[in-house]
Amino acid sequence: MQVHELPTPSLLVDVQAFDRNVATMAKRWPGLKLRPHVKAFKSTALAARLAEAGHRAFCCATVREMLGMAAAGLGDDLLLANESLELGRLTPVVERGVARITVAVDSEETIEAAAKARVPEVLIDVNVGLPRCGCDPPDAGRLADAARAKGMTVRGVMGYEGHLMREPGDTKADLVERSMGMLLVAAEAVGGDVVSGGGTGTWDTNTWITELQAGSYCLMDTEYTPHAGDFENALFVNTTVISRSAKWGVLDAGLKAFGMDHGDPKVLDVGDCWFVSDEHLTFGVADGVEVAVGNRVRVVPAHVDPTVSQHERLHLVDGDDVREVWDVDLRGW
Amino acid sequence: MQVHELPTPSLLVDVQAFDRNVATMAKRWPGLKLRPHVKAFKSTALAARLAEAGHRAFCCATVREMLGMAAAGLGDDLLLANESLELGRLTPVVERGVARITVAVDSEETIEAAAKARVPEVLIDVNVGLPRCGCDPPDAGRLADAARAKGMTVRGVMGYEGHLMREPGDTKADLVERSMGMLLVAAEAVGGDVVSGGGTGTWDTNTWITELQAGSYCLMDTEYTPHAGDFENALFVNTTVISRSAKWGVLDAGLKAFGMDHGDPKVLDVGDCWFVSDEHLTFGVADGVEVAVGNRVRVVPAHVDPTVSQHERLHLVDGDDVREVWDVDLRGW
Repeated sequence: MQVHELPTPSLLVDVQAFDRNVATMAKRWPGLKLRPHVKAFKSTALAARLAEAGHRAFCCATVREMLGMAAAGLGDDLLLANESLELGRLTPVVERGVARITVAVDSEETIEAAAKARVPEVLIDVNVGLPRCGCDPPDAGRLADAARAKGMTVRGVMGYEGHLMREPGDTKADLVERSMGMLLVAAEAVGGDVVSGGGTGTWDTNTWITELQAGSYCLMDTEYTPHAGDFENALFVNTTVISRSAKWGVLDAGLKAFGMDHGDPKVLDVGDCWFVSDEHLTFGVADGVEVAVGNRVRVVPAHVDPTVSQHERLHLVDGDDVREVWDVDLRGW
Repeated sequence: MQVHELPTPSLLVDVQAFDRNVATMAKRWPGLKLRPHVKAFKSTALAARLAEAGHRAFCCATVREMLGMAAAGLGDDLLLANESLELGRLTPVVERGVARITVAVDSEETIEAAAKARVPEVLIDVNVGLPRCGCDPPDAGRLADAARAKGMTVRGVMGYEGHLMREPGDTKADLVERSMGMLLVAAEAVGGDVVSGGGTGTWDTNTWITELQAGSYCLMDTEYTPHAGDFENALFVNTTVISRSAKWGVLDAGLKAFGMDHGDPKVLDVGDCWFVSDEHLTFGVADGVEVAVGNRVRVVPAHVDPTVSQHERLHLVDGDDVREVWDVDLRGW
């Protein structure tokens, strides 16, 4: 199969860029030092590539991602790095012993849900400054005791400094140090040997954790690139020009093909994005550019995770060759 | 099945609001005067409800929607109200005679694609002011002749005044009249008896068309409601509070559960949306509100179409009863 034969819209992954991203990350965070976050790409086939590169422990954001990874034989060490009260679906996986299951907890209710689902191991999720999940740091020790009292093993802590990913380089290091300082104090109170955190935006800043939770680095997007310059865009939406007027053209990919929370995607080569509709992207044709109905145009998403999750498959491409087709098989909940 | 037993996040459709919306629209645009736009809800089960209400002609935005509607026995009169160069997938449907297939064309290339796919009928898509698809109005007659020369029947014209949906009421009527004036001139040159256009935002303004292309009115969203006040929100994302801090709570629905191009969704009853992450919505807890981990919270999407397309099913609910489950079976391309 050749790229120009693929239907559009379709997702393309440039194999050279992808391989470089994986190699760059693996050099700094080799093997189990990296716990790749499946939410960024939602594909067991892509995850299998990372496992081949030595990363056999993964983060998930949903129960379905956990189930899919276990079913695909990628269950050496799966962390649900998120709170859930619907953990009963994990019980059969735990009971069959086909995967090592750990979940994050940050409250008595989530500890109770984990115990009820017979999840054997937990991390205490600690708030390190991002107003989202995670307990107050001084409460971490008490929650660890509560989990142990219910018979669970507490492997350590996790804390996500997501509010710092886009800080400028010179202040990022200071802020991450302060944030991780909170996590290390909590880790002391909790016990265990895992201190899990970080992401693509702090991959070269965060030196306090025992394992990095990064996922975006594999494929990247226009929003993240300025904050993690060692990685490059490997993901493109492959589109066709379906209409052409004097000043603009229209591509056959729209709101259902792009995550839009970080703004418009970037049209390559032919002009600038004017606006995005349900199934269209209208672009202003750049001066001197020839573009006709039927031409193929590549577009770089602004946000990788909610872009990939809208598609059924990723096509690993090398020039015009489609090398592999990876199902986006971890969508939904 | 009861609503409180559903996993979250999940989509709920309030049956009373849905039925009122359908009845309100059918009163003004009965039977075949309305051509409901499938792109808004992407579900043949929901479409079947509209067919029962008398609307048996439909608009689609993608080839997959056309194929799915035909396969579901809803192919009395299917219009692909969009340009495509991948029409070959429609040929088997045309040849088996299981659906009436019409496609929009706006260029020689799209006419050629329709002819090659043996699509028997077309509408000439005319640009009426929105910079997207559609030919220049003076070019419509020439394109109609080109389509007829290739053996196709030209049923008439379509033109979408999408740029006027959010105009204030007093100027909307004038602007729509001017826009539709362009369409009527083109219709004269094209021939045929169809003048298709409009949407939920101009349902009570556009009196020049022979059929209305509206889809959002069934389910609605926060963005459209001020512009089509006779319809009400019938769509909710059902979520669970998974984490609670002193000032905020976290819901288990995020960027993969909401279309975000129109901004943040609206949290009902418990507080205001602060921000949305991949699988989370952080909300500030309103003063005096009690909200705990495990509570269910409903959230109204800001944009219906790209919200529904991220889910696998719609649950038609009446209070706490789940009356029907509708697969969102027309996703993808």
